[in-house]
Formats: sequence, C-alpha cells, structure tokens
Amino acid sequence: MKERIPIVEKILSANDHIAAQNKSALDSAGVLGLNFMASPGAGKTSLIEHTIKKLKDRLKLAVVDGDVATSIDADRAAAAGAQSVQINTGGECHLDAIMLQGALSELHLEEIDLLIVENVGNLICPASFKLGTHKSVLIASVPEGDDKPYKYPGMYRGVEALVINKIDLLPYVEFDMEYFRQGVEILNPGLVTFPLSCRTDEGLDAYLAWVETEMEAHRRVVQ
Amino acid sequence: MKERIPIVEKILSANDHIAAQNKSALDSAGVLGLNFMASPGAGKTSLIEHTIKKLKDRLKLAVVDGDVATSIDADRAAAAGAQSVQINTGGECHLDAIMLQGALSELHLEEIDLLIVENVGNLICPASFKLGTHKSVLIASVPEGDDKPYKYPGMYRGVEALVINKIDLLPYVEFDMEYFRQGVEILNPGLVTFPLSCRTDEGLDAYLAWVETEMEAHRRVVQ
Repeated sequence: MKERIPIVEKILSANDHIAAQNKSALDSAGVLGLNFMASPGAGKTSLIEHTIKKLKDRLKLAVVDGDVATSIDADRAAAAGAQSVQINTGGECHLDAIMLQGALSELHLEEIDLLIVENVGNLICPASFKLGTHKSVLIASVPEGDDKPYKYPGMYRGVEALVINKIDLLPYVEFDMEYFRQGVEILNPGLVTFPLSCRTDEGLDAYLAWVETEMEAHRRVVQ
Repeated sequence: MKERIPIVEKILSANDHIAAQNKSALDSAGVLGLNFMASPGAGKTSLIEHTIKKLKDRLKLAVVDGDVATSIDADRAAAAGAQSVQINTGGECHLDAIMLQGALSELHLEEIDLLIVENVGNLICPASFKLGTHKSVLIASVPEGDDKPYKYPGMYRGVEALVINKIDLLPYVEFDMEYFRQGVEILNPGLVTFPLSCRTDEGLDAYLAWVETEMEAHRRVVQ
C-alpha cells in the first residue's frame, strides 16, 4: 500500500500547520496546554477531576474531552468545576489539530490558565497527531501490565511526563515496576514520572507540583 | 477531508476481499478462527495462555499475535504450547486481512483445529477491519471501568462474545456491573458474556465450554 504514504504525509503536514496555529492562540492568551493520552480506562478523567479540584482555587482550568461517543468525560470535568468542551470523533481513534481548533473557538481562552486536552483512549494513534499543546502527558496504569512501554514504543517515546496510575492495585496484580521503568528509560531517558493513585490520593502532590511548575515556567516564557 | 473517503472505501473493500480468501482457507482446513480484540492490558494474552493450556490435549491450537512492536505475546503463546506467529505492525493500530494472510502462509493449517488471532491492543481501529475469522471476541477488564461500552460503541457492537476479565479486582475498583451490562445490552442485545479471572481461574470453564461448542458447530458446518 505504498501509494498511501504521500496522502498521509499531506494530511499530517496540514495537521502540523493547524497545530502551530493552536499553539499561537494558546500562547497569546497565556494558556498552558497539556495533552493527556492513555489507554482506555487508565484514569485520565479521574486524574483530570483531581487536578481541577486541587488547583481550581489557584488556576483557571478548562478541559477539552475527546471520545468516540458520549459526553461522560466532559460532564465529569464540568461537575468538578472547569469549563469543558466535548469532541465526539465519531469513529476516529485520535484527536487532531483541526478538532482542537474547533474546540478552542468555543472557549474563552483569555479567562483560562491551564487547558487539559483529554485525548481518545488509545495507546497508538494519538501519538502521531500534534495538537498544538505544549506538553504531552501519558497516563499508564498498573493493571495494564508492565510490558506496555515495550509494546507501544511510539507513545512512550513522545511524551514529556508519565503518570503511573492505580498504584493502590499493586498488591493485587503482577506488575514489575523495575521492568516497566527499564522499558520507559530505554525509550525516553530521564522522563519525569509520577506513580500515584487517584483512589487513595497517594503521590498526587508531586504531580500537582509539576503542573504548577510548568504553569509558572510557561508564564515566564510567553509574557 | 472529504476527498479521503473514496480511498478509504477502496482499501476496506480490498481488505474484505482478502478477508474472504482467509475465511475460505480456514474453512478448507476445518479451522475455526477467533479474533480476540481488547484495550491494551485487558488480558488477551493471559486468556490465550489459559485457552492453550486447558484445551491443548483436545484441540490443536495456533496463535497469530499482532503488536506494534516485540514478540512478547507470541513467545508466551509458544511457551504455553501452541504454534505461533508474531505480526509486528510497525506503527499500525490494527491487524488487517493482508497481514493475517501473510501469517496464515506460515502456519500448517491442516494441522490446526483452532486459530486465535490476538489483535493489536486498541478499542477502536481493529473493529473496522475484517480478518476472515469466524467470530470476534472482545475482552473487557474490570479496572478499565464500567463506561467503556458507552464510549467505544463500535467495538461492542461488532463482536459475537464478550469476556469480562479481572473480576478478582471487583472489590478494589469502582465498577458497576449492572451499568456495564446495560451498555452492552443496548449495543449488542443478548451478547454471550463470560465474567472471569485469568488470575484465579474463576469463570474460565464457561468460556472454555463456549470455545469447544463453537469448535464443534464449526466442524459440522464445514465438513
């Protein structure tokens, strides 16, 4: 199927162009954009709920939720206290920059500090599409198993932070943290990593401190 | 991006054509083909290991494993006692009929009763590509959460059996079985469902009995 390659490149290039426009729009408004990616059920939405609840007194948050169907996640973000926009992709397996552009047009960016984009639950396709966010965060989870970095290298290679969620389940599943971390280190040396549990709140503070540090660094750059 | 649609349809149609060839090849050899699909880490490989170990004295099994990278899963299937072929898709997010055709050419079909195809871990894309297998089995898992049927309707709609794995984790996570099952029932009424745990073996017998019944039914049809 060699004939598909030029078409795909053209779409990706158009996507990158819109992604750059999205980034400019965020920068102009002083908004830090984070792209949350994960397998289905790793806990993206729970982590976003925690982020909103813990930081909403200090930061103005908005969430753009990507899903094949339903507005369950955007409803949860709104209930937690953030502006939220749901993108239903139909059958599409990822968000792209054009979808995010549409969502940004429905937000009041000048009233936002931090925008979290919750990508479609998928460990493969979202890694190939830039959105125009500043940092990508991968949420892994303990019950998924310790071999995921080895099996989904593209995703683990392309992120700036890694959350290992559901560490409260470590006693009940087979998960060799050392083997998992070795896989991550090969693909993305020195990657900042936050083992935590959205159920018990263990480890959440270090992750929240990282978000605030990134927010401050972003403000210094764009001001 | 309307101009993409005809190209995609052409690829799908070519895929369906090869899928029909794969099905004929399986039927000629009396092989029942099952397509196992799931989110990353739901337990496809563990279920396949159990299937091999429990049925290998009565059925000759082979496994075709699809992954973005590594041969971890095919190695596990081989260790459990089945012929196995690994397909590494590179970046591709699903198996297609052409990939399976290549894998079938490496197996001795006339020496096989049951072929399990382990698709790439992904709740979206694999649902769109026929392979030529006879039945599709979706492996859900409790820690993924009870909202997955609502959020990934395409996958839940297109399968002939559903395994709910990791029920041993029910005491430790929030998972409303009734809400989950309602979502499934809307999309796929009467879907045969096997709640089980590959860790404790609870519920495995009913699933294994289903596999054997399907095998017998298939033999009656193709003989």
